[in-house]
Order: sequence, then structure tokens, then C-alpha cells
Amino acid sequence: MLSGDLFGDLPTVLAEEEIFLLADRPGARIEKIVSTGQASPPGFWYDQPFAEWVFLLQGSAGLLIEGEGAARELRPGAWLEIPAHVRHRVEWTDPARPTLWLAIHLKS
Amino acid sequence: MLSGDLFGDLPTVLAEEEIFLLADRPGARIEKIVSTGQASPPGFWYDQPFAEWVFLLQGSAGLLIEGEGAARELRPGAWLEIPAHVRHRVEWTDPARPTLWLAIHLKS
Repeated sequence: MLSGDLFGDLPTVLAEEEIFLLADRPGARIEKIVSTGQASPPGFWYDQPFAEWVFLLQGSAGLLIEGEGAARELRPGAWLEIPAHVRHRVEWTDPARPTLWLAIHLKS
Repeated sequence: MLSGDLFGDLPTVLAEEEIFLLADRPGARIEKIVSTGQASPPGFWYDQPFAEWVFLLQGSAGLLIEGEGAARELRPGAWLEIPAHVRHRVEWTDPARPTLWLAIHLKS
């Protein structure tokens, strides 16, 4: 049976975001993502064909949804469901400590 | 856009476990579960037609998988994927403070 510790082995400095695949099924994909100050490149927007349920566990981040005036500041405990094709980008993540996300792609 | 705070408004004493539905799609269902000392009734086993990805965020719990000699002691960060029809039960949850779970039913 697959099991693990989501808080284990958090790196403190990464060249890029690290993505750990925790489960992948026809209907859903579960990822752990660790950011250490990264942001989406200038002008880049995620535009995904699936809804995504995002949950921030540690650290903090600024998530900009297209059409909203300012980035949503996400703190531990914050979750949101981003509908398919709603464009969004990560404006910033905490530079001082790892930001830990759980991202669930709702593929159907 | 649906959003919320997973750590918000945690009750401290409940007559029964509380389940909050966060997302429900054909392929996946996401639930927040709060336990305050509850356990599965004597002799009761969960036997589910879907795989379940379980993650313990706060508190602690003893999860017994049928065929294993002792309950797995889950601490914050612990996750496991329980295959469909693998019988399991919650032997105990922390009596002193709320135990917070995220449960994802992988329906396809």
C-alpha cells in the first residue's frame, strides 16, 4: 500500500519548483508541490483543461486569477477550486521558507 | 469560485465525526473530516468500491488495515492510498484535540 509523510524531507532551496506525484487515476491526479520563492514566469498563465483543487499547507503564496484586481494571498489552510480554463498564475511564493501545496487535478 | 480555510472553525467536541464536502466530481470526491475521539464501531469495517487517498493534517489516529497486526499510528503529514475493497477501520482518534483529515475518493 502506498504511503508517505507529506511534510517529510522538505527542501529549503530549490532551483525550480518540485512536484511529487502522489496518485494518478483516470479521474484525478494528486500532486505535492514545493516552492521556495518561485513564481510563474512573466506573462505566463496556466490555462488547464481540467478543474484544479488547490490547498496550501505551509508557507504562503500570491495567486492571481485572471480578471481579479489583485493576487489572492494564500496562507496555510487556504483552498480553492479553479475551474477549467480559468487562467491563473503564481505571482510569488514565500522566499524565506518552503511553500507546500497539495494540487488535485479533477480530470473528470 | 469556491474557496475556504481548511483549518477554520474546527470544533473541539463533537457527538459524531463531521464531514465537509469540498468537491464532488465524477472522478473524485474531496472531503474534510473532523474527529474528536471517535472510532469505528466495534466490528465495523469500511469496505469501499473506490480507492481512497487519506491524509492526516492535525491530531492523530490509529488506522487498522485488515490483515495487518496492529493499527498504523498516523501523525500529521501521514498519507496513504487504500485500494478499493481493502477493509479498514479507525481504531482511535486523539481524544484531546481535533483530528483533521482530508479524504479523496478516487472514483475512477
